[in-house]
Amino acid sequence: MASPTASLADVARHAGVSLATASRALNDAYGVSTATRAKVLAAATELDYVASPDATRLASGATRRVAVVVPHIERWFFGQMVGGLERVLAAADLDVLLYHVGDEADRRDFLTRLPARRKVDAVIVVAFPVDEDERQRLELIGAAIIAAGGQSADYPYVCIDDYEAGSLAMRHLVDLGHRRIAMIGGLDPDQPGWPVVSGRSRAYDDTLKSVGVEPDPRLVHEVEWGPTNGAAAMHRILDANPDGPPTAVFVHSDELAFGALQALRHRGLRVPDDVSVVSIDDHPLAELLDLTTVAQDVAAQGAVAGQMVLSTLGDRPGALPSGVTAPVELRVRASTRHT
Amino acid sequence: MASPTASLADVARHAGVSLATASRALNDAYGVSTATRAKVLAAATELDYVASPDATRLASGATRRVAVVVPHIERWFFGQMVGGLERVLAAADLDVLLYHVGDEADRRDFLTRLPARRKVDAVIVVAFPVDEDERQRLELIGAAIIAAGGQSADYPYVCIDDYEAGSLAMRHLVDLGHRRIAMIGGLDPDQPGWPVVSGRSRAYDDTLKSVGVEPDPRLVHEVEWGPTNGAAAMHRILDANPDGPPTAVFVHSDELAFGALQALRHRGLRVPDDVSVVSIDDHPLAELLDLTTVAQDVAAQGAVAGQMVLSTLGDRPGALPSGVTAPVELRVRASTRHT
Repeated sequence: MASPTASLADVARHAGVSLATASRALNDAYGVSTATRAKVLAAATELDYVASPDATRLASGATRRVAVVVPHIERWFFGQMVGGLERVLAAADLDVLLYHVGDEADRRDFLTRLPARRKVDAVIVVAFPVDEDERQRLELIGAAIIAAGGQSADYPYVCIDDYEAGSLAMRHLVDLGHRRIAMIGGLDPDQPGWPVVSGRSRAYDDTLKSVGVEPDPRLVHEVEWGPTNGAAAMHRILDANPDGPPTAVFVHSDELAFGALQALRHRGLRVPDDVSVVSIDDHPLAELLDLTTVAQDVAAQGAVAGQMVLSTLGDRPGALPSGVTAPVELRVRASTRHT
Repeated sequence: MASPTASLADVARHAGVSLATASRALNDAYGVSTATRAKVLAAATELDYVASPDATRLASGATRRVAVVVPHIERWFFGQMVGGLERVLAAADLDVLLYHVGDEADRRDFLTRLPARRKVDAVIVVAFPVDEDERQRLELIGAAIIAAGGQSADYPYVCIDDYEAGSLAMRHLVDLGHRRIAMIGGLDPDQPGWPVVSGRSRAYDDTLKSVGVEPDPRLVHEVEWGPTNGAAAMHRILDANPDGPPTAVFVHSDELAFGALQALRHRGLRVPDDVSVVSIDDHPLAELLDLTTVAQDVAAQGAVAGQMVLSTLGDRPGALPSGVTAPVELRVRASTRHT
């Protein structure tokens, strides 16, 4: 890494452009070709250039803008989260810059470029991890980082306890007498190792073991989030168990469960008479489908993340909790019953 | 209206603050109280103050930011739309400022304040109307307006033809022999008069009349968008027709239809054996619920809106269509059958 005190002139020299062009490129002005802008940004990144270090030392805010970075804006969870935090930030007269970043490469590219452009006071990352290197770059320019929908040791976060949510769902099934319980897990191929999944899966294993049942790999299938995949996973599990279906299924999210319900219906299995189904979220359609689920209030988590940003920008670190674990609650509906 | 050439000094004088304070307030700098900022913005609004008129005459962009204004970020339609346009704008290195504005008063306040702050090059309004006065204010500062998800005579738009979508759904039911057809309509109380609804409702009336059936008000119920309301509307229609249910229901959107399906199930009516259901959208869960629907690709409409912004900012008015009508397509699934 080069010295963090690189000047604009250093950047211009490194990129082989004039000072004016370097300035325009970094300030996103028009009249600079995409190729030139890319070259200047690359130079700025390489030299760890930070625009106007004196100004950024004031940290909280020249821009009054907050970047919200989400991997999947189209999904219920993310819409709720963004809605909740936008309300809080807008009320404080802060603008939300929305960035949709898909896979890991996109995300690295985004988080690496953001500092050189110094466009925001804070960054809220929704449900994905930020690595140490990315975190350092953001801190260099004084942008606060808040994690929403996922836990982090390195910066303030708000999320549910996935192990707790999974345990509530599994405990409900076990209390109803179920022992042969399948699990449909959610995986995000763009976010390998993101710990959301493992908390829910650990709860599955631990709850079964607590009643003396050894988890059976034929009853577990993990798929990418999304309703259609939930149907495919359910079919796979039924196919892998020709001796008879499980008496219950624990599904990592409601959207996956909607698919599982369809698959069960298409296979002629009744819910809950033949198979009980429980999941996590309390998506608005869960009630309509009579789905028993562990509810979380995602919009409220968004609001907490917004409040964390306000605390950070107000320079009141004492008032800022290192993490908030949002409550979860079992909602029993008609998709689960006694064995 | 005052002269559009009011200076910053005029604004400061009118607001009773110093020039520096007026400037800071308009530039969203810190160190200005909310009350003062409100006073200055009010003065700027009253005087039609436009920051740096010379610069704004260059119109297409100092900011490289686009405001996306949505009334309901949490809903499927809006998430899809924002996702689609963010991809196109991000690829062109434009940032998306997301504004969630709820009711009409919020919206007016937002659209009135935006010009004085001159923060964006373009405004995309998603599925709500902009009135003449608001439009003029935005044009004054050279911000382009694009309407996504709703038609407009005044600025470029992309949306489906609601009459066409409704006609496809209704024609499908009529072709299956249905004549006693109910309708669950969607209303947005925050957007009175927004024409989306009437296109779908007109299609209902016209299709019935085309087969010699006079629309029966006891078979029609309009509710606010949202799945739970669809269930309530279905119950109301069944209650209003004790002599027997309709043989089919045309629902204005899939999310309302999910509720209608639950209500029918709870009343012991089978779909499609007793009642056929058809709606509009092709929400990802429609397939899982075997719902026949008229599909629209909302993310693609978002991408078109993004392209329209690029055309506008590139000053290529010739390349910019005044409106794009997105295609719709009937997807026949298991929720509809012959009478």
